Amino acid sequence: MKDRREALPSAAGPPSPERRRPVALVAVGGHAFIQKGETGTIDEHWRNAAHLCGRLMTLVERGYELVITYGNGPQVGNLLLQQESSPDDVPAMPLDVLVAQTEGWLGYILQQALLNHLRSRHMRRFVVTVVTQVLVEPDDPAFRDPSKPIGPFLDQAAAEERARTLGWKIKEDAGRGWRRLVPSPQPVEVVQRLSIADTVAQGHIVLAAGGGGIPIVRDEETRAYRGVEAVIDKDLTSAVLAADIGADLFVILTSVPQVYTDFGGPNEKALGALTLQQIETLRDAGHFPRGSMGPKINAIINYLRTGGTRALITNPDSLEAAINGAAGTHFVGRI
Amino acid sequence: MKDRREALPSAAGPPSPERRRPVALVAVGGHAFIQKGETGTIDEHWRNAAHLCGRLMTLVERGYELVITYGNGPQVGNLLLQQESSPDDVPAMPLDVLVAQTEGWLGYILQQALLNHLRSRHMRRFVVTVVTQVLVEPDDPAFRDPSKPIGPFLDQAAAEERARTLGWKIKEDAGRGWRRLVPSPQPVEVVQRLSIADTVAQGHIVLAAGGGGIPIVRDEETRAYRGVEAVIDKDLTSAVLAADIGADLFVILTSVPQVYTDFGGPNEKALGALTLQQIETLRDAGHFPRGSMGPKINAIINYLRTGGTRALITNPDSLEAAINGAAGTHFVGRI
Repeated sequence: MKDRREALPSAAGPPSPERRRPVALVAVGGHAFIQKGETGTIDEHWRNAAHLCGRLMTLVERGYELVITYGNGPQVGNLLLQQESSPDDVPAMPLDVLVAQTEGWLGYILQQALLNHLRSRHMRRFVVTVVTQVLVEPDDPAFRDPSKPIGPFLDQAAAEERARTLGWKIKEDAGRGWRRLVPSPQPVEVVQRLSIADTVAQGHIVLAAGGGGIPIVRDEETRAYRGVEAVIDKDLTSAVLAADIGADLFVILTSVPQVYTDFGGPNEKALGALTLQQIETLRDAGHFPRGSMGPKINAIINYLRTGGTRALITNPDSLEAAINGAAGTHFVGRI
Repeated sequence: MKDRREALPSAAGPPSPERRRPVALVAVGGHAFIQKGETGTIDEHWRNAAHLCGRLMTLVERGYELVITYGNGPQVGNLLLQQESSPDDVPAMPLDVLVAQTEGWLGYILQQALLNHLRSRHMRRFVVTVVTQVLVEPDDPAFRDPSKPIGPFLDQAAAEERARTLGWKIKEDAGRGWRRLVPSPQPVEVVQRLSIADTVAQGHIVLAAGGGGIPIVRDEETRAYRGVEAVIDKDLTSAVLAADIGADLFVILTSVPQVYTDFGGPNEKALGALTLQQIETLRDAGHFPRGSMGPKINAIINYLRTGGTRALITNPDSLEAAINGAAGTHFVGRI
């Protein structure tokens, strides 16, 4: 395997030779903190994070530097629910601030769980969560067509009132009630990419881009950064960040051990390893639906097309076997 | 007390000579985001942060590396209020998680405001918020005597029910109702101090230790880190961090331009400059009450006693004049 770490940008200059380790960027879902049937108590968050981070130790033990990105779907949903029922004298915060809150919340949970695994193995590594802004384009088509349902299910009258008073776009969702739709624009640039790369180069484990990152735009008049009411797909942001920091391996952890064609159908088939060309062909044939594996496959393709070499989709419990080449779905880009 | 600067470990080694700029650590209060008469809307947060960060640019323009710590009193109070009235199916989060949420929230606000000031001045500097855990001792006397009132004012019956069911310690507060009391233990160690020092050494502006840091202890049986329901004084944590990273200047920004003896009394006198010995003498004579200037003075003393050289207390609007020696209260330690 060719060493791409030459390309790693760093204000500190190249890391000293004994610190040169390959970099893995691992994306985990917000549902990793809340198992089926759980309500998302803090004890459940701690227990699930401890299990997940135990699995991630495999990568540390194999000598990887680690960047971990994380989703926040259920958690930001709970914050929105709390705001709905909040007393009038507590001002509601917009979605960009709520994403920032979940970045702190879940970053703390993950960093503490990781530190405890490291210390119990007597490994002197440090862990740091970076509050991450992600730039999107103000003219991204997603802003004209909000499509991502978030927050509580409302009855029709309540939803329509908010549409009138707050300008929400709303939609009936799966027979369960009415929900707010927000835009999900494409990530363009991770604002803290240089600090993240520098911190990784120094051997620290970095948690970043929680919830896909805090969505901001550059104001067209003032050129200042400004938060927007949107959510960014965390796998797409992860692909941008993985390419930016020259990650040698991009892992998406999800709830299934492998990627399948005709998932749930009569010809379901697990995929072992694919080239960039093969996965693009399957994607273009419509094998990966928009609501499930589609965004993850697009993230993998983006990473490989922007210089990535190896990627993997699997679940946490199959990660070790996948690293040994005995599980997961592997993707190969340029050598 | 030992000099913490000698002990500073750094994976990065000493910064290269051309990068050696003095480091200032500036502590700002959570009230800096909400002016008198305001309720704490997001627009008020942005406007106040922009003003504050404009004042902080003076330090950047004078060639300082910058670490900024920040309080979270009003914001964590609002999150507690929201949890009080939250629907039952949204699990309440403990205080350590709420502190982590405000670290993300206010870190985002500050980093965006700073980036906008930097970019409008065409300065290519990066800003990063570090989610910060702070270790306290499980046998800190504060845990036996919770004294810090937090969260909503309740009527007596509601407060007593929570005391019974949740084990809260409660107290009638200033005739306005009953509140929960939580411990305010001494900060012992900033867990992310090394990552913070490394990031500063690379020229990035770092926001850290929001709300005094997320309070954690090392479990006496398992030795694992564990969050605790407590709040740490942000000025005391700032002093520990300032000493740990070898800050050359420690600034506490507050609502008054100077420190006074006999504040509000007939012999009120503004203090211009004091040695460590002078300020200790005034402190021991009871000039700085526990509920106002006391903790800030103790933080300054801790910093100077652990190797700090220069410290300053003033308000944001006097900062520039204070740097010119024409305002503020200055403290000098060892040369």
